[in-house]
Amino acid sequence: MKRSVIIVAGGKGSRMGSETPKQFLLLKGKPVLMHTIEVFHAFDKNMKIIVLLPVDQMTYWKQLCVEYDFAIPHQTAEGGATRFHSVRNGLALLDDEGLIGVHDGVRPLVSPDVIEACYRAAEWKQAIIPVTDIVETVRLVEGEDQSKTVPRDQYKLVQTPQVFAAGLLKKAYEQSYSPAFTDDASVVEASGHPVYMVKGNRENIKLTTPFDLKVAESLL
Amino acid sequence: MKRSVIIVAGGKGSRMGSETPKQFLLLKGKPVLMHTIEVFHAFDKNMKIIVLLPVDQMTYWKQLCVEYDFAIPHQTAEGGATRFHSVRNGLALLDDEGLIGVHDGVRPLVSPDVIEACYRAAEWKQAIIPVTDIVETVRLVEGEDQSKTVPRDQYKLVQTPQVFAAGLLKKAYEQSYSPAFTDDASVVEASGHPVYMVKGNRENIKLTTPFDLKVAESLL
Repeated sequence: MKRSVIIVAGGKGSRMGSETPKQFLLLKGKPVLMHTIEVFHAFDKNMKIIVLLPVDQMTYWKQLCVEYDFAIPHQTAEGGATRFHSVRNGLALLDDEGLIGVHDGVRPLVSPDVIEACYRAAEWKQAIIPVTDIVETVRLVEGEDQSKTVPRDQYKLVQTPQVFAAGLLKKAYEQSYSPAFTDDASVVEASGHPVYMVKGNRENIKLTTPFDLKVAESLL
Repeated sequence: MKRSVIIVAGGKGSRMGSETPKQFLLLKGKPVLMHTIEVFHAFDKNMKIIVLLPVDQMTYWKQLCVEYDFAIPHQTAEGGATRFHSVRNGLALLDDEGLIGVHDGVRPLVSPDVIEACYRAAEWKQAIIPVTDIVETVRLVEGEDQSKTVPRDQYKLVQTPQVFAAGLLKKAYEQSYSPAFTDDASVVEASGHPVYMVKGNRENIKLTTPFDLKVAESLL
């Protein structure tokens, strides 16, 4: 079955110019985004890889690819105002056939097993997300200084790649944007199709703080 | 104000003898539990420190203290069948005065600032827990293959130390045990007293897997 992946790298850096966007931070001497692309390419050499980047980072990314001799074939596309709009721009470059995964550019530590599990399960379930358990006690905040413990085993943390039948995902993204669309699963669900879970890998963290980067360094 | 801490080190290791309980795993060449005790002692040299250990680990712990020349004054007490029973055993050694914190033995990365914030806030709020935000999308599982996205900013992850007015905590622990008591906050709330939140530090993870230990190694 034909497989594609849309890798969303939307980080702008808090102060462009002086601060490097997260997807370009160096992990073991190489930009994070290159690690992420590599793990998908290693999974399937024939996979179509589309990388969404803010328009003002395109030139820089191409320079980085030359500088680091990065030769994995991929197509770039312009990010939009939100993650939803970015993914929609990526989908415009893909047809209705096969499976499309959507992955965060700053999750380079996704395991090959999890990628495989998501694409395999999507072949018959059509909409798959990887999730992990919560190991801490969880509290629901109900107001100023009001909160209560909730049963943590009823909650899961959602990762990427989220993988869908291509036609289903493209159709879901024809909907108007809603702020409730925090990930692709929520877009697909709003279109009326259920989403199914598979087990993610705990190391598959989203690199959003210096803390995460330190963790990633130690895991790679 | 008088300050005490009960450090709960209840890990048994999956196969006692062949596998080391988590609190004794080596972090930078020293058992995890010693790191944890050190951070509280550094916060307040006069603090009373009570360490709860499974009865069959007492001798081993004392050997470790000799072997590692560990000289921080602390009292040990026997753990019970559950965390609730362990804490209750620890409380029996403390009086009604001042503040009592309860901390997980396998959280050596709590920051001095968070310990300070919890004890300070408990002086006037009487029941304080440190919490962190959730950075991932959160789903609520409602049944076999049924789940939905919930607003993650309404949920918090709970850490330790949880700090309480001594009299309040001791009274709360006079209740009968309930499986709903997943932490000290839930015990205190069940006794009718509200619990308040302060900001924890993200590095303050509970070391429960080899993954966590690697993370901790890189952060120390």
